[in-house]
Amino acid sequence: MDLIPAPRLVRTAPRGEDFVLNAGTSLDAGPGTEGTARWLRGALGGAFGVDLAPGAGGIVLRVDGGLDAEAYRLDVGPERVEIAGGDAAGVFWGAQTLRQLAGERAFRRAPVGGREARLPAVAIEDAPRFGWRGFMLDVARHFMPKDVVLRYLDLLAAHKLNVLHLHLTDDQGWRIEIKRYPRLTEVGAWRTGTKVGLRESTRFDDRPHGGYYTQDDIREIVAYAAERHIRVVPEIDVPGHSQAAIAAYPELGNTDVIDTTTLPVLTTWGVNPNVLAPTDSTLRFYEGVLEEVLDLFPADVSPFVHIGGDECPKEQWRDSKTAQARIEELGLRDEDELQSWFIGHFDRWLTERGRRLIGWDEILEGGLAPGAAVSSWRGYAGGIAAARAGHDVVMCPEQHVYLDHRQDGGPDEPIPIGWVRSQEDVYRFEPVPAQLAEEGARLTRRVLGAQANLWTEALDTVRAVDYQTFPRLAAFAEVVWSDLPAPALRDHDGFAARMTAHRARLDALGVEYRPPGGPHPWQRRPGVVGRLKEGPPPIV
Amino acid sequence: MDLIPAPRLVRTAPRGEDFVLNAGTSLDAGPGTEGTARWLRGALGGAFGVDLAPGAGGIVLRVDGGLDAEAYRLDVGPERVEIAGGDAAGVFWGAQTLRQLAGERAFRRAPVGGREARLPAVAIEDAPRFGWRGFMLDVARHFMPKDVVLRYLDLLAAHKLNVLHLHLTDDQGWRIEIKRYPRLTEVGAWRTGTKVGLRESTRFDDRPHGGYYTQDDIREIVAYAAERHIRVVPEIDVPGHSQAAIAAYPELGNTDVIDTTTLPVLTTWGVNPNVLAPTDSTLRFYEGVLEEVLDLFPADVSPFVHIGGDECPKEQWRDSKTAQARIEELGLRDEDELQSWFIGHFDRWLTERGRRLIGWDEILEGGLAPGAAVSSWRGYAGGIAAARAGHDVVMCPEQHVYLDHRQDGGPDEPIPIGWVRSQEDVYRFEPVPAQLAEEGARLTRRVLGAQANLWTEALDTVRAVDYQTFPRLAAFAEVVWSDLPAPALRDHDGFAARMTAHRARLDALGVEYRPPGGPHPWQRRPGVVGRLKEGPPPIV
Repeated sequence: MDLIPAPRLVRTAPRGEDFVLNAGTSLDAGPGTEGTARWLRGALGGAFGVDLAPGAGGIVLRVDGGLDAEAYRLDVGPERVEIAGGDAAGVFWGAQTLRQLAGERAFRRAPVGGREARLPAVAIEDAPRFGWRGFMLDVARHFMPKDVVLRYLDLLAAHKLNVLHLHLTDDQGWRIEIKRYPRLTEVGAWRTGTKVGLRESTRFDDRPHGGYYTQDDIREIVAYAAERHIRVVPEIDVPGHSQAAIAAYPELGNTDVIDTTTLPVLTTWGVNPNVLAPTDSTLRFYEGVLEEVLDLFPADVSPFVHIGGDECPKEQWRDSKTAQARIEELGLRDEDELQSWFIGHFDRWLTERGRRLIGWDEILEGGLAPGAAVSSWRGYAGGIAAARAGHDVVMCPEQHVYLDHRQDGGPDEPIPIGWVRSQEDVYRFEPVPAQLAEEGARLTRRVLGAQANLWTEALDTVRAVDYQTFPRLAAFAEVVWSDLPAPALRDHDGFAARMTAHRARLDALGVEYRPPGGPHPWQRRPGVVGRLKEGPPPIV
Repeated sequence: MDLIPAPRLVRTAPRGEDFVLNAGTSLDAGPGTEGTARWLRGALGGAFGVDLAPGAGGIVLRVDGGLDAEAYRLDVGPERVEIAGGDAAGVFWGAQTLRQLAGERAFRRAPVGGREARLPAVAIEDAPRFGWRGFMLDVARHFMPKDVVLRYLDLLAAHKLNVLHLHLTDDQGWRIEIKRYPRLTEVGAWRTGTKVGLRESTRFDDRPHGGYYTQDDIREIVAYAAERHIRVVPEIDVPGHSQAAIAAYPELGNTDVIDTTTLPVLTTWGVNPNVLAPTDSTLRFYEGVLEEVLDLFPADVSPFVHIGGDECPKEQWRDSKTAQARIEELGLRDEDELQSWFIGHFDRWLTERGRRLIGWDEILEGGLAPGAAVSSWRGYAGGIAAARAGHDVVMCPEQHVYLDHRQDGGPDEPIPIGWVRSQEDVYRFEPVPAQLAEEGARLTRRVLGAQANLWTEALDTVRAVDYQTFPRLAAFAEVVWSDLPAPALRDHDGFAARMTAHRARLDALGVEYRPPGGPHPWQRRPGVVGRLKEGPPPIV
């Protein structure tokens, strides 16, 4: 069956007890399972040309309060298939397993063979290890049209991942329509060209690049995700990584230090000194942005709002009379505390509105409101410190799960970046570091889960994104869902064997993953300079 | 209501008689309408979160033998919506109109507002003008992943277009897996780089480019199209435009004239002298290719097979002893007759297998089997001559409906090519030239319909393809479907007014069309050289 992610418990029954899915198969959807029924009708209806008309027997979906949230039980017998979920999400994850049982053809959108599928008789009990199983897509550095985002939601669902973190703003582009500030997209949503490769590269493409999501596009993305039991976490990055906003509204920058009216949307990469001014008017501006963001991302679907907070160089604040006056007025020690004050403002602002702030681990420096959470990206250390301080943590250490990092050390990887992180390396990623586990369950529980992050400086199309994301995201999905042993004891050979079947599913889905033997010739980018980190990555 | 394409007859009823589509709406699908029912459940189910469970009343679909093929009648009243189609396709086209009546939100994949839609009370009678309403997508010059093709099938369906012509092979790439000749894709499916702009451009991108459809991908595309009542016409281009095949199998070229082992998959554009050798082994090779093509494109869905036949320079045949010997052996006059013999071979070969050959209008030169059809691209003349000679014709004159041609004469069009062909120009395209109409119905009937063709030398992504295709494909759809008067009398102002509503549908679909005022900044390509044709295009 080669299921990915591996379920907790699988009992197979003798062959001959298989269930045959065909045009006569009915679907019996209990209360709370209507969304999964609709999804199954669409997915299997497309793949096999079946209707799954309502009726007793056949496929049965129901919520069983005796199971945990997101857990499910799947029983396949000759007469019927039953999925019982602890909640609507559990039923949906069970349906994802059902699709895998139906074979690779179930991942196509029209029948390529006969109009029936044989599901092996089996009993599966399953539940996720973590409640936060995330993927971050950077749509700021290279815009990915709405269809790409919807497609990735489908791919996340197929891997039982349940958080899409959308990095919506950065120096190189602003991707979300804000009605009260139209220049954020009129000016901020496009740039005149793009550095090809990382900053060290001498190549530049003078082709303009841009695009943004309208508010209806965002509503559609959020609703489409919700139907798949995926939460969308919007990221509006402050006070660094904000040059696209400053290009649109120069008064947001440190106008007493540089002439911000000449700042373009950035066309190159790297940490950038042009940051927001720590003024009241900047705070009011971003409150206005966030008011619209909260309207677009309802609290039940998107309780968390990510405010970035990473990589904010302090040079301009050091040189700015306005910033220095503010430090003095607030009685702060230095520019680092000024950043804390800035983040703290939005922490309180979001908390007052029933939301929770999440930010990159730099936000820890200076203290946070109790409900705030941390994306631990510079390693485990930030996450460990956050957990000790009583904050929830999403583990996404760049040493392990930054999927923009290269997949192999050979010369064929396109625009190679960072450390070599193979499928096996990702498979051996452990979200709860031993250090934290040793301190007991109270701290361990602070780790909500983990996230694989994909930055797109070097990824300009969905085809490049597919290559960099898969197959590693499948390994990551198993890490955050399944009941795996300690990293060194994990059976990567077994996982790799299951990946043979899984690659056929990805082929059917049209995912242009990295083949095991290396890139297809057309997936290479010879001669484009990335930025390597040599040797094994530090573990912390 | 602003329907596009405009239906033949619309009677509106007083407001207040509207139909409200919501979670309680049932769907009553008569025999032969199951596919449309499945499509409606998917489209409206996604857009509004409704299930359209089977049941009497609500939306009623049925086939009515009293109506013509592809015709439909749509009645919307307060209690029910009825679509009667002359056949399954007619029901499906009626469902497309129903979606337009449901408003722009019906074109999204998840609910962005309330979970209901109000359909205005109306009675519509409708039928297409032509049976061949086509779009050609060139996936050889730039490969478009399977998802792009499926998305375009959805877009064609939304515009009631019913033929997708896939240009699968050319000098710059071979895009279809052929099991017995694996090098066609191993070697032929990618190139080392690409000329940016047309041949005159000095720019070159050294990024490898490639990709191909597996046989299962093709089956999926064909089946997905069939569910939408769209025929897929595969094009395997011979004897010109074949350098990708020669790069894979050098023996296919004129080996006694040049060293074909050194020919790469072409990285630049234009008519190319490296053509197939007119040998028996070449014929056998392409019979092998076509055997697999016929297996993948079943006769009921794809009766026509396109063999190209355009732009075959004769220099190498003039210099080739082998070619000259063949001319002598066959008693032919010259190289032009040799090309006729080559095409004639596949014409007979396809006819013997119950298929019909179609080719570019160059294939007329030398006589064709009675069932063969012609794509008239160099103007109307080839189509007129073909009709007079008793052949069916698809009108696709480059002067009118080559969508790679620029949409405006201003400096902002990306990589401008050809004549200026605005939305209005396309709207005034007439598939049946006056000359032919004057010769009577017998000849007029030879015009099966028309096709808008999109060549992708300058279009490297789906975003660029969207820009070039829309809004003009919407105007083309109305030309081939609706009952329009003579070109000069057509109400383009009225069409343009309806396009306001239609652009909202395209926005909902995520189509990055050309805005009426010109490209978004990020849709421009400043400085990339295309190839202009000045002045109005010749009419013939």
